[in-house]
Amino acid sequence: MSYFRDNIQRMQPYVPGEQPQGGGFIKLNTNENPYPPCAKVVEALRAAADGSLRLYPDPACARVRERAAEVFGVEPDMVIIGNGSDDILTMVMRSFVSEGDKVVFLNPSYGLYSVLTNIQNGREHVVEYTEDFKLPADIHQPDAKLTFICSPNNPTGTVAAPGEVATLAEKSDGIVTVDEAYVDFADGSCLDLVHRFDNVIILRSMSKSYSLAGLRIGLGIAAASLIGGLMKVKDSYNVDRLGIVGAEAALACVENMRENAEKIKKDRRYLAEHLEKLGFDVLPSQANFVFARPPMPAGALFEKLKERKILVRYWDLPRLSDGIRISIGTRHELEALIAATEEILAG
Amino acid sequence: MSYFRDNIQRMQPYVPGEQPQGGGFIKLNTNENPYPPCAKVVEALRAAADGSLRLYPDPACARVRERAAEVFGVEPDMVIIGNGSDDILTMVMRSFVSEGDKVVFLNPSYGLYSVLTNIQNGREHVVEYTEDFKLPADIHQPDAKLTFICSPNNPTGTVAAPGEVATLAEKSDGIVTVDEAYVDFADGSCLDLVHRFDNVIILRSMSKSYSLAGLRIGLGIAAASLIGGLMKVKDSYNVDRLGIVGAEAALACVENMRENAEKIKKDRRYLAEHLEKLGFDVLPSQANFVFARPPMPAGALFEKLKERKILVRYWDLPRLSDGIRISIGTRHELEALIAATEEILAG
Repeated sequence: MSYFRDNIQRMQPYVPGEQPQGGGFIKLNTNENPYPPCAKVVEALRAAADGSLRLYPDPACARVRERAAEVFGVEPDMVIIGNGSDDILTMVMRSFVSEGDKVVFLNPSYGLYSVLTNIQNGREHVVEYTEDFKLPADIHQPDAKLTFICSPNNPTGTVAAPGEVATLAEKSDGIVTVDEAYVDFADGSCLDLVHRFDNVIILRSMSKSYSLAGLRIGLGIAAASLIGGLMKVKDSYNVDRLGIVGAEAALACVENMRENAEKIKKDRRYLAEHLEKLGFDVLPSQANFVFARPPMPAGALFEKLKERKILVRYWDLPRLSDGIRISIGTRHELEALIAATEEILAG
Repeated sequence: MSYFRDNIQRMQPYVPGEQPQGGGFIKLNTNENPYPPCAKVVEALRAAADGSLRLYPDPACARVRERAAEVFGVEPDMVIIGNGSDDILTMVMRSFVSEGDKVVFLNPSYGLYSVLTNIQNGREHVVEYTEDFKLPADIHQPDAKLTFICSPNNPTGTVAAPGEVATLAEKSDGIVTVDEAYVDFADGSCLDLVHRFDNVIILRSMSKSYSLAGLRIGLGIAAASLIGGLMKVKDSYNVDRLGIVGAEAALACVENMRENAEKIKKDRRYLAEHLEKLGFDVLPSQANFVFARPPMPAGALFEKLKERKILVRYWDLPRLSDGIRISIGTRHELEALIAATEEILAG
């Protein structure tokens, strides 16, 4: 006999990319930013690490919300702060989805949507991206309580057209969550939709563009009516004192973030060009990674790169098993990846 | 029309104690430790605030689990780390309670149990403590999927006898969670039960005894079979890099924690004696606070203390509205509280 709910008992957990605790790896597998966070963030964190840690954090994260509101051009009551954007995905799931309710997301996309649906015992409805990774017509499901769109999409790097997302939000009787964790590396965004629709939630993350994966800061932006309800589901002290300090400091470093994002976009082009020269089919990416199909079995390439201490991401799953996802590291790391790949292909 | 689930729409949120962002308050309202965390924890955090924050944390928190296992005399696979013990309470709720399942907890106790049951759309069943705050016979509910016992209990400071908890665990077909957030200020513990029962989960917190409320570190200790399932529900990166470093450092500072706890226990006696002299009825507390019934309306006393910039906790709820909960601050803070109370009572 198990004490666990049946849905928990039978579900498979989310498997994050490897986080090797030893050194020596070129780590291009979990979309971390190769550049350190803004020096002002590090300074602020060091200054905040003191005796005041004996006190609870501000449960409302008021100052972060105010600063985020300025950066995103919204009101503070349209912003919620999460312990990573994954925390906000969880709040969204618990707020809108009862057992058996339909949750819609795309394939291939971020694996956590399915895991969170299973934990909630919702009914997942997976729709397939078109062959060129555009939104398909059946993304609109009239009985969907919640629809996830990841744009730029993980792991393909492709984007959903804001106009098509707007059409979906307009037709939908449920919530449309646009996961924009990678949007600082893209040309557009769906952020404006929060002013037009009371059923759209935009998610942002400081893990990638702000180089703060280790600090766990996510932001949700939506109509105040939605944020107010999500605040009831949010754990009171979900973001710790240092997270609050770091997030506030990071939002004052937008220029630094943009400079790093520009370098990464440039290196994304560099990588794509070199991979194409080596015979890869590279999907057009707007994220800090590329999904690329090699002229050899992708799983074997993944293993051979790992033997050379270069980590990329590989999934043995439909529509993904013919490619690898490569995070955009430093130019030096990408050169090492390209050289190793050339060697492996030469066999 | 609301997009929210009915249970979310109608529920009242958890209301944490005030966290005034301005200074000048004597803050005896949220059970924070008046002493700073161990200097080694602060040093470790400062050292860890660097460029490595661009990388994700270890999703398994392996090193913290190993060290916690040593401290608690269990195996690492019997430990889970949470973003505060509230995070583990949430994992427990999502793991064992389906919609409509019965969740049992006591009155009066920690308000979050009810809030989390409502978010999960479970069926809460509240049993009353006996008049002297012992476990009542009807704490055993044959169809309970989950029972929460807070010991020492918040906000009364009273404890449940480990033998009675063992009897409950033995009879129960569901999970018994013993929330021991305050146990480092008590004389006993239910920790040993995890070796005897596969349905007991012990929760610990670094917020109180380790002076780390601002860092959000909770620990769950249970049979490996339970921890394995809870890990599926845990967010991969629920504890950030700094939290991991701080928790590991804190677990090497057990002596420092115990010294502070001893000071607090001594001052708890000091406060209780003085309050009794002023005509209060003080419950026997094993926590870092006392629940005390004043010889005047408790709500009025709470307000008058607040006017004097002394914050304590007051609830206008059955069995609580005749008292206030006072966290054990420094001796100096307690003297100020006693003097102010004397003045207020003299009217």
